[in-house]
Amino acid sequence: MKTFEQLSQELLTRLGRRVRLGIVGGGSDSVIGSIHLLTHRVDGLADLVAGAMSIDPAVAESSAASQLIEPSRRYTDWRIMLESERNREDGIDAVVIATPPQVHAEPTLAFLEAGISVFCEKPLASNLTEAKRVEEAAAQADAVFAVNHCYSGYPMVRHARQLVASGALGEITLVEGEYGVGVGALLREPEPDQPKHWHFRPGPMGKAVVLGELGSHLHHLSEFVTGQHVESVSADLQMVAPGREVYDNAYLNVRYNGGAVGRLWSSYVAAGQEHGLQLRVYGSEASLRWCQESPEQLWVLHPDAGAQLLTRGSSNLSDEARLATRVPAGHPEGYVMAFAVLYREFFHGVLRHLCGEDPSTAIAQLPTSADGVRTLRLIEAAERAHQDGRRVELDSIGMEK
Amino acid sequence: MKTFEQLSQELLTRLGRRVRLGIVGGGSDSVIGSIHLLTHRVDGLADLVAGAMSIDPAVAESSAASQLIEPSRRYTDWRIMLESERNREDGIDAVVIATPPQVHAEPTLAFLEAGISVFCEKPLASNLTEAKRVEEAAAQADAVFAVNHCYSGYPMVRHARQLVASGALGEITLVEGEYGVGVGALLREPEPDQPKHWHFRPGPMGKAVVLGELGSHLHHLSEFVTGQHVESVSADLQMVAPGREVYDNAYLNVRYNGGAVGRLWSSYVAAGQEHGLQLRVYGSEASLRWCQESPEQLWVLHPDAGAQLLTRGSSNLSDEARLATRVPAGHPEGYVMAFAVLYREFFHGVLRHLCGEDPSTAIAQLPTSADGVRTLRLIEAAERAHQDGRRVELDSIGMEK
Amino acid sequence: MKTFEQLSQELLTRLGRRVRLGIVGGGSDSVIGSIHLLTHRVDGLADLVAGAMSIDPAVAESSAASQLIEPSRRYTDWRIMLESERNREDGIDAVVIATPPQVHAEPTLAFLEAGISVFCEKPLASNLTEAKRVEEAAAQADAVFAVNHCYSGYPMVRHARQLVASGALGEITLVEGEYGVGVGALLREPEPDQPKHWHFRPGPMGKAVVLGELGSHLHHLSEFVTGQHVESVSADLQMVAPGREVYDNAYLNVRYNGGAVGRLWSSYVAAGQEHGLQLRVYGSEASLRWCQESPEQLWVLHPDAGAQLLTRGSSNLSDEARLATRVPAGHPEGYVMAFAVLYREFFHGVLRHLCGEDPSTAIAQLPTSADGVRTLRLIEAAERAHQDGRRVELDSIGMEK
Amino acid sequence: MKTFEQLSQELLTRLGRRVRLGIVGGGSDSVIGSIHLLTHRVDGLADLVAGAMSIDPAVAESSAASQLIEPSRRYTDWRIMLESERNREDGIDAVVIATPPQVHAEPTLAFLEAGISVFCEKPLASNLTEAKRVEEAAAQADAVFAVNHCYSGYPMVRHARQLVASGALGEITLVEGEYGVGVGALLREPEPDQPKHWHFRPGPMGKAVVLGELGSHLHHLSEFVTGQHVESVSADLQMVAPGREVYDNAYLNVRYNGGAVGRLWSSYVAAGQEHGLQLRVYGSEASLRWCQESPEQLWVLHPDAGAQLLTRGSSNLSDEARLATRVPAGHPEGYVMAFAVLYREFFHGVLRHLCGEDPSTAIAQLPTSADGVRTLRLIEAAERAHQDGRRVELDSIGMEK
Repeated sequence: MKTFEQLSQELLTRLGRRVRLGIVGGGSDSVIGSIHLLTHRVDGLADLVAGAMSIDPAVAESSAASQLIEPSRRYTDWRIMLESERNREDGIDAVVIATPPQVHAEPTLAFLEAGISVFCEKPLASNLTEAKRVEEAAAQADAVFAVNHCYSGYPMVRHARQLVASGALGEITLVEGEYGVGVGALLREPEPDQPKHWHFRPGPMGKAVVLGELGSHLHHLSEFVTGQHVESVSADLQMVAPGREVYDNAYLNVRYNGGAVGRLWSSYVAAGQEHGLQLRVYGSEASLRWCQESPEQLWVLHPDAGAQLLTRGSSNLSDEARLATRVPAGHPEGYVMAFAVLYREFFHGVLRHLCGEDPSTAIAQLPTSADGVRTLRLIEAAERAHQDGRRVELDSIGMEK
Repeated sequence: MKTFEQLSQELLTRLGRRVRLGIVGGGSDSVIGSIHLLTHRVDGLADLVAGAMSIDPAVAESSAASQLIEPSRRYTDWRIMLESERNREDGIDAVVIATPPQVHAEPTLAFLEAGISVFCEKPLASNLTEAKRVEEAAAQADAVFAVNHCYSGYPMVRHARQLVASGALGEITLVEGEYGVGVGALLREPEPDQPKHWHFRPGPMGKAVVLGELGSHLHHLSEFVTGQHVESVSADLQMVAPGREVYDNAYLNVRYNGGAVGRLWSSYVAAGQEHGLQLRVYGSEASLRWCQESPEQLWVLHPDAGAQLLTRGSSNLSDEARLATRVPAGHPEGYVMAFAVLYREFFHGVLRHLCGEDPSTAIAQLPTSADGVRTLRLIEAAERAHQDGRRVELDSIGMEK
Repeated sequence: MKTFEQLSQELLTRLGRRVRLGIVGGGSDSVIGSIHLLTHRVDGLADLVAGAMSIDPAVAESSAASQLIEPSRRYTDWRIMLESERNREDGIDAVVIATPPQVHAEPTLAFLEAGISVFCEKPLASNLTEAKRVEEAAAQADAVFAVNHCYSGYPMVRHARQLVASGALGEITLVEGEYGVGVGALLREPEPDQPKHWHFRPGPMGKAVVLGELGSHLHHLSEFVTGQHVESVSADLQMVAPGREVYDNAYLNVRYNGGAVGRLWSSYVAAGQEHGLQLRVYGSEASLRWCQESPEQLWVLHPDAGAQLLTRGSSNLSDEARLATRVPAGHPEGYVMAFAVLYREFFHGVLRHLCGEDPSTAIAQLPTSADGVRTLRLIEAAERAHQDGRRVELDSIGMEK
Repeated sequence: MKTFEQLSQELLTRLGRRVRLGIVGGGSDSVIGSIHLLTHRVDGLADLVAGAMSIDPAVAESSAASQLIEPSRRYTDWRIMLESERNREDGIDAVVIATPPQVHAEPTLAFLEAGISVFCEKPLASNLTEAKRVEEAAAQADAVFAVNHCYSGYPMVRHARQLVASGALGEITLVEGEYGVGVGALLREPEPDQPKHWHFRPGPMGKAVVLGELGSHLHHLSEFVTGQHVESVSADLQMVAPGREVYDNAYLNVRYNGGAVGRLWSSYVAAGQEHGLQLRVYGSEASLRWCQESPEQLWVLHPDAGAQLLTRGSSNLSDEARLATRVPAGHPEGYVMAFAVLYREFFHGVLRHLCGEDPSTAIAQLPTSADGVRTLRLIEAAERAHQDGRRVELDSIGMEK
C-alpha cells in the first residue's frame, strides 16, 4: 500500500513543480484564514502564489505580502484575480474560498467555470438554491472540487467510518452528535456599542447561523461515519444569550435513511466548553465514541466484553486510518494535521488532474458538493420544522424550485 | 456543624434501640432487593425484623431466613405483615417497598395509614392517579415518607445542587441529562422461549417502562440539581431492539419553569454502556457535569478560566456535600454509600419521629411524594406528546380527574 | 459457583446467629475506627457487642454507647475485655485490632491465645521481632487471623492478580507502585504549638512511618498482584516538609524473586493528591494499571493491539473478581465495599470455624501474618539500605535474632 | 504583545525571502527525518534547498528529489554540501542535523565554523567530550545554534515552566519524570536473522542508548520546567528483553541544585505504552502534571482546593504559552505543532541574524548546547553510578579532561 504522501510525491516529481494556489478571503482578520495559511503548507504540495485576501485593500495587501506573494498577484477583488490568473501562463491551478458563507457560491461557480479547482469552506453556500447551483457546476467542471468539513480528516474518524462499514457495530440504531461551544465572545453578546461578529448578525443565512457554522459539521460527520443520510428532522431552536438576534442553540432530532434515529445538538452557549464536538454511534452489537478534543482516541464499547480504546497510529487500524496518518502512534497529530489531510487529498486530486489522470480515487474521502447540498437542505428543513412544530421530510425541501 | 451520623447516634442512644424495619419485596430474586438489604445496614440505624419478601412462599421464607428474621415475622403477604406488625408491641416502625411499580401505591397507602413510615422504590406509582393518592396520604400520615431516587444521595450531586442554588453558574440555561444503558439482557430481547423481564412486558406501566425505570431518575436528578421543575415536554419514543413490545429508547425535550431548556435521554439500547447516567447543567456564567460512573468527581467549567475538578471529601465543598460524606477524600464512596445516604436520612427522620420531634430537617433532601407525582405527570405527558407529535404542558395532564 | 454471600448465609442460618465481634481501638477520635464501624456491618454477618475503644475512658464509653454496645461490655482496657469476654457464655468470637501499630502485636497475641479470631490493622506490628511472634502465634492458634491490607479487597485487584497468574501478561518484568498523598495535615507540619499526629512523631516505628502506613500497602499490593515477593531493596528516604522528624517521602527500588524489578514510592508530600495509590505491572506481552481513585477500572495495554478497559461487574471477568462483587456493573462500589470484602471473608472464615469447618478456603485471599512479616522485613531492610547507600537483601534482615 | 508569527513575518518581509535551509540525514529511511520534513514547512519561514539526506546515494537522491530540491544541491556527503553551499551566493543560511547521535558533533562543528546556523537533533553528541567541543564552538560561532528537545515546544510545557518560575507551586520538592515506551520493535529483540535498529546495537553511545534517546528528553524537560539542574544521580540500569545487548530500562534517582529530589524513568519495555512521556512536579504549595499524549492539558493540583485543568489556548495562560500557540483553544495542536515551535524560534533567530539583529530574544526558550552538555554529563554519571552502586555527583564527571 503506497501512502498518499508517496503517491503525491510521485506526481510532484513528474510535474516538476507544486500546485499553484490562490486564496479568496483568509486575510489577517480571519481566524479560519490563519488555519488555511498554516495547513496548506504542511505537505509541501502547493505554493500560495496569488490572493484576494480581503475586501479591505490594506488588509489584502499586507496579508498577501506576509505570505511573500509577489506584488502583482495581490488582489482586492476575486473577480480581478480570476481574470488575471486565467490569463497568466503560470496562473493558479486551484483556489481556496475562505470567505463568509454568503460569498462561497459566486466565486466557486466562477472559478470552476474557468477550470480552476476549488477548495471551499463550509457551509457550501448560504442557501439551498445556491448550493444546488454549485453542485451542478462541480459536476460539469473540468476541475476538482471539495468542501472543507475538516473533522472528517481525522484518522480516527476515518477508522470509525470503516468500522461502521465493516459491520462491526451491527445495525446502526442511534446517533448522538453534539457540538457545544461556550467561551469568549460566542457565549455572550458584545456590549451594545461593540460590533457583533458576523456569526451573530442576522444576514444572508438568516437566523440559523449556529446550524451553518456548527450543525453543518455535525451533520456531515454523522453521515460520513454512519454512511447514512438524514431524511427527516424535528427541531427546537433557541436564542439563549440575552439580546441575541440569531439562534445560538439548536436541538435537532433526526432520522437517517438506514433506519437510525439520532440527535444533533449545536450550541454557542455551552458555557465553558472550548470545542465540544463529539459523536457517538450505537449499533445492535457495539458502539463507538469520538471527541474532537481527544482526537487520537476512538472508544469502542462492546456489551459484555469491555471497552476498547483505539489510538491513532496503532498497528491494529484500518488502511483508511493509516492513509490519513503522518507521525507514529503516541505523538498526537491534532487539528492542523487533520485539516491538512483534506488539503493533501485535494492537492493530490489536483496533481492527478494536472497530470491528466482521473482524480476520483484521490478525493474519494473528501466532502462533496452533494454533501454540501444535503447540509443546506437539512438547515432549511430544520427551520421549517421549528416554525411548524412538526417533523419535516428533507425530500420536501427545495423541491418547489 | 454536627454530622448526620452524630445526630442519629444521639437519637439512637436516647431511644436505646434501632429503628425496627420491615420490607415488602426484595427477595432473593430481586436485584434492587439485594441493594436494599446491603444499604439499610450501613449506618447501623435499623434492624430488619420483618419481611414479606416475595409472593412466592418459598422465596419469601428463605429470603427472610437468610436475613435472620425470626420465623414468626416471615410473611408472604404484605397485608398480613401489616396486620400482624401493627398489633405487636415491638412491631415495625418503618417499611421499605421494594416491589415492581404496580405494587408501590397500595401497600404504601396502607402502611402510611397505619402510621408506619415508608421508604418507597421509584417510580412512586404506576400511574398519575395512584401517585396523587399517595401524595395525599403522605401529607396526612403521622409517619415519614420518601421515594428512593438514590442518585440524589451522592455527595457531589448534593454539591451540584448547592452550586446552582448559590448562583455560581449564573442563570441556568440548558440541561443535558442522559441515562443510556446497553448491556446484557437489557440490550436484546430474549429468545422467544425465554421469559421477559418485567421491564420489557407491557403491563401496568404501559409501554413507557424506560421512562419509569430510567427517565424517572433523570427527571428527579435534573430537578433536584437545578431547583426547577419541568413544565412542558415534547417526546420521541422508540422500540429499537427487534421484537420489543415496549419503548426502549426515549428522547424528551423539556422546558423548566425557571426558563431552562433541556433534553432527557433514556435508553436501554446504548450498546456497551454499563450505566450511563450523566447530568450537565449550563448557566450563563459556568457549567457543571457529573457522571454516575465517576461519582466522586464534579466538573465545573468556567468560560475563559479553565476547568475545575471538585472531588468528594475535599475541604472546599459545601456543607450539603459534607453531610452526605462518610469517608475521607480519595477513598471512593460509590453507589452503595449514596443509596445509604437516603436510608440514613430516612432513618434519622423516623428516629426523630419516634422521639417526638419534627422530622422535617432530617429529610429535607429526600425525594418526596410531590416529586414522585411530577415524575408520573411527566411520563404521561411524554406519551401524549409522542402520540400527538407536539409539545405538551404538564399542567394539562391529570387535571381532568 | 456459589457467591461468598450465599455461602456465608448458609453458615449464618445454620449457626442461627451472627459472629460476636469485639473491637480494640477505633474510638470516636480514630479515622480508621470509623471505617471499621461502617464496614463490619455491611454484610450483616457480625454484631459488634463489645469494645475497648479508647484508652481515654470517656471516649471509650461514648464510642461504645454510640454503637449500642451494652454498658457491661464497654471496656477501657483490652486486657479486661479479654478476661471478661472469655468468661461469658456469649463472649466474642472475634476481635478487630484498630489501634496504632505499636499496639498491634500484644493484643493480637493475647486474643489468639484465647482462641479468639483476630482481624488486625496493618502494619502487622511495629517491628520485625514482634511480627514474627504474631506469625508463630497465628500458626498455632485455634482461630482465624488476617491483616487488613484493605486494597486487596477490590474486585479489579483480584482480577489483576488472576490476570498475572493466568500468564496473560507474559513474564512479569517491571512493577511501578506509588502511594503519594499530599493534602491537609499530611503535607505540612502543624504550627509549633499544635500537637502532631502520631504519624509524624518518631516513636515505636522509628522514622519510617511513611513506610509503615503507605509503603506497607504498596508492598502487599505489589506482591498480591504479581505473586512474587520482594527479595532486595535499595532506598532513598527523605524528610521533605520543613520541621519533619520522620521520613515523609520514600523511594524504594526493589527486586522480586520471580525476576521482576520495580519501584515503590510512598509519600506524604505529593501536594494535591488525595490518595494516589496506583499499581502498574508490566510483562513481556502486556501490562496492566489500576488506580485506587478509579477502582472500578482495570486497564490492560496490549502492545500493537490497543488498550482494553475492564470494569467491575462485567461479564468478562474472572471468578475471583466476581466473588468480590456485590452490585451490578456501572454502580461504583468503592472503598467501603472493598474493605468490607476483607471483613466478609474474615467473618466467613470465623463462621466456618464456629461451625467446625476448615476456614482456609474462605480466607484464601486474605493477607496473612506471613505477608505482614515480609512487610516489616522490607521496612527494616529499606532503612538499612538508605543508611548504607547500598542494596540490601531481605534475607539478611532479622536473621541474627 | 506581538506574536512570534508577526515578528517573523516582519523580518521575512524585510528580507524579501525565506531562510535557505539544508539538511543532513533525514532521508526516506529515517523516522525523525520525515518529521523534520513536515515541521520545517509549517510556518513558511524556510525553503529546503539543499540536502545530504543519506549516505546511501540512491536514498540521498530520491529523498532530495521528493522535496523538489534541485539536482545540483542533492548531496551524499555533508562535507561536500558544506563546501558547495558556502561558495554559492544563494547558499544555505542554516542546516538541520538529523543523523544518529555519533554523527551530530562533527557536522555541527563544521557548519558552525562556516557561520551556518545549526538545528541539531538530540542528544547533542554521543559523548561528553564531543558535547563540550560543540558547546565551545556554539559560543564562538557567528550563527544560531539549538538542540531539538522538541517536547519543550508544547505550549503547556511552556506554561508549566512559567508556573514554577512564578512561585505558584511554592518550593519545588519532588520531580517525577517517566518516558516508558513498549510497542512494536522496541519491546522485543528482532529474530536473530533480522537486523537490529541502531537503538539496540552497542555502538558509539555504548550501552546507554535508552538514556540518549529517552532519558535525554526527560532530563531536559525536567530542567526546563523546574529551572533546576540535576547535580547528582544514582542509577539502576537493566537489559530486560531477552537477548538485549544494551540497556532498555533505566531508573535514575536524581537531586537538583535547587533542592528537589526526583526520579527519571526511561524504558523501551513498558509494554503497551505508545509514548508514555510524563512529568509531575510537586511543590510545597501545589503540584502539576503533564502527559505528552494529552499535551493540551496541564493539571494543577491544589491541596485542599481542588484540581484545575488548564488547556492550551485558554485566555488564562501565560504569555509564554500564548507565544507558542497557533490555533484557538479546543482545536488540539499536538506534536507536529510543538516541534514546529522550535523550528519557528530557530528560524526567527536566523532571520534576525540575517537582518543583522541580535537573535537572543528569539531563541531564549530553545535548548542550548549547555543543556546538551549537561545531558551527556548525566548519562555518563548514571553509567558510573550504576557500575559503582552509589550516588555520583555530576560535577565529578568529565572534569579530568
